[in-house]
Amino acid sequence: MANLNLIKQLATASGGKIILLVMDGLGGMPMTPDGLTELETANTPNMDRLAREGCLGGSHPISRGITPGSGPAHLSLFGYDPVAIPVGRGVLSALGAGIPIKAADVAARGNFCTVDADGLITDRRAGRISNEAAAPLVEKLRTIQIPGVNLEVRLEQEYRFVLVISGEGLNGNLADTDPQVTGKAPYPAAALVPEAEKTAAIVRQWVDAAADILKNDAPANMVTLRGFGQPPDLPTFQDIYHLKAACVAVYPMYKGVARLAGMDVLPTGNFTPGQEFQVVADHWNEYDFFFIHIKYTDSRGEDGNFPAKAAVIEQVDEALPILLNLNPDVLIITGDHSTPARLRAHSWHPVPTLLWAPATHLPDTCQSFGERETQRGGLSQFPASDLMPLAMAHALRLNKYGA
Amino acid sequence: MANLNLIKQLATASGGKIILLVMDGLGGMPMTPDGLTELETANTPNMDRLAREGCLGGSHPISRGITPGSGPAHLSLFGYDPVAIPVGRGVLSALGAGIPIKAADVAARGNFCTVDADGLITDRRAGRISNEAAAPLVEKLRTIQIPGVNLEVRLEQEYRFVLVISGEGLNGNLADTDPQVTGKAPYPAAALVPEAEKTAAIVRQWVDAAADILKNDAPANMVTLRGFGQPPDLPTFQDIYHLKAACVAVYPMYKGVARLAGMDVLPTGNFTPGQEFQVVADHWNEYDFFFIHIKYTDSRGEDGNFPAKAAVIEQVDEALPILLNLNPDVLIITGDHSTPARLRAHSWHPVPTLLWAPATHLPDTCQSFGERETQRGGLSQFPASDLMPLAMAHALRLNKYGA
Repeated sequence: MANLNLIKQLATASGGKIILLVMDGLGGMPMTPDGLTELETANTPNMDRLAREGCLGGSHPISRGITPGSGPAHLSLFGYDPVAIPVGRGVLSALGAGIPIKAADVAARGNFCTVDADGLITDRRAGRISNEAAAPLVEKLRTIQIPGVNLEVRLEQEYRFVLVISGEGLNGNLADTDPQVTGKAPYPAAALVPEAEKTAAIVRQWVDAAADILKNDAPANMVTLRGFGQPPDLPTFQDIYHLKAACVAVYPMYKGVARLAGMDVLPTGNFTPGQEFQVVADHWNEYDFFFIHIKYTDSRGEDGNFPAKAAVIEQVDEALPILLNLNPDVLIITGDHSTPARLRAHSWHPVPTLLWAPATHLPDTCQSFGERETQRGGLSQFPASDLMPLAMAHALRLNKYGA
Repeated sequence: MANLNLIKQLATASGGKIILLVMDGLGGMPMTPDGLTELETANTPNMDRLAREGCLGGSHPISRGITPGSGPAHLSLFGYDPVAIPVGRGVLSALGAGIPIKAADVAARGNFCTVDADGLITDRRAGRISNEAAAPLVEKLRTIQIPGVNLEVRLEQEYRFVLVISGEGLNGNLADTDPQVTGKAPYPAAALVPEAEKTAAIVRQWVDAAADILKNDAPANMVTLRGFGQPPDLPTFQDIYHLKAACVAVYPMYKGVARLAGMDVLPTGNFTPGQEFQVVADHWNEYDFFFIHIKYTDSRGEDGNFPAKAAVIEQVDEALPILLNLNPDVLIITGDHSTPARLRAHSWHPVPTLLWAPATHLPDTCQSFGERETQRGGLSQFPASDLMPLAMAHALRLNKYGA
């Protein structure tokens, strides 16, 4: 596990340029006992060349056997300890919804639910109402105002929304209001520490207003809140690594995590990999470090669509010359976790990692980029949080420790 | 990371004999993309046979991506935690200068500098005076006496010297006197904790005497001191491993680190590897453990002289039968860190490690001793501080943990 205090002591302000290219959920599995994985199946002449020249390995985002969500997995890729820095569901939802949440804010996940005439919950998910049904209700909730704070409400999906409170002296140590069973009333928001009393009072006021606004909107005639929390106050990439860092991502969640790490988030749209790479090229001279996030490898893995996931990998490979033409000193191609189409879900399998740094890498004997090649790679298996120290070392951006 | 308390509980007083042969800076890199490393290039029939019979791996002296100095790297090889046990610059310089520094002593690095008539520094390095010019000045400094303490001064190189103070109740928590800029006077030595007041007063007295002695020796008419510290009070090899341990090294620094670990330092001169091995043979019956240090692999790596580094490795291989004829139970051949000739510097790359213990090793499929063979070795990659527990285990010197 990387020691960020040590890295911070050793990091220099000059050195090579680093690209961290993350294909979300990159790692896969064969669909049949004798088959190949998605990455092994994909035709990736550029990555295979980089694999022959550089070195491979497999990373563990948290530790062996632990399947990470995207939040902790990215914290680990960025060098943070994802277990020591828990990020609440509310904060992850806020990041996912693209709300530019700050360390002083408090976020919670909300559910629309159904209550009876006595205020007891009869359906914790309000009949799983559709996005279309939920959208106007969220608009109603957005009209609630409480003096002294700013309130942001966004629809997450179906019956789920996210609430973010901004203001002075807030504290996210609140208990869930969701009793997790039907037949009970939602709990009034309660502080878990004295410092959170003010925030609890604000939340109670907001929930009362929400109950009033929604009272005729059955089945969605009430709300519950859970996963209260505040974003971790992370030391930034500038602080730790002395890197001027930029993020190129299409999904809000990844932009949000990058922002927490102090990266500049460069403007994008619903871009192809090639278009994302072009953003890097357009800003090449402004930054030392680029984090590029490719979403659809994970999406197709979660769909269980093996050929479509392999096709996304091929699309990335085909666009890779845009990055290679920039002559990065260090190029790392990896995932944040594995999402085998066979499992249709995130998994705990080691994440394929390719490190290419022509002036400093120690080549291994790997011939192509694929899960089984990484198993004999020169990087071995390692905690994902060691990847940034490796990137820094290969960019000659770390001084020697001791004499 | 080795748990020394656990090892200490499990270590037995009997078992096999262990040789730890350290070629400083052993790990290398190819000079060209398709080339071999120094170790892969060297003709090493003896090591290759041991590699076929035993098992290989790669060690990380500190953690992935961190380039160590020789001090921390050797602490790690000896099983200590090199980050938890910081060793100050002054102590490393004292060890390097061959001063037999003890845990109660305080050491500092000194610079000769130039001050003007107002005592302000005009050159922090006294015009980088030569060894020849500095030697008589160091002799002058050696005449300074302060009641109650012993003082040792040695030239390190050019304008750099080392000061060691021995006596009762000393404390090394002192601020640097070097202001790090010109135009300021050197700071008077200042205690960082109340317990260091006495030491600070001694240092101020010494600096005043030095200023007086040097006043007509411009450009070297003053001194600054930095990196004050005391040697770590390490548990010894006898304490932890129950090993009677000896060191065979040519350079003072490595003898010093071995002495800190409680090893006997056997007499040597400017010896070849074969001559160093003969010292082991001469003392074979007196010790359980021998640490042998070969310096010139690192020196030639730092020179960027690839063929000369490979030649040192060949010299070691050629002399290896002297050690093999002793029938050691465990022979480990490794480095303290990598020093690729290509980088002309220490590096972070995993350190090639060969473990040969004919009665206890589990052979792997490696066919020769080289970086890329180690990548598929049976030892995998591991923290260098795990090497001593492995050595102890293979010598059948560790009891079972629990029932």
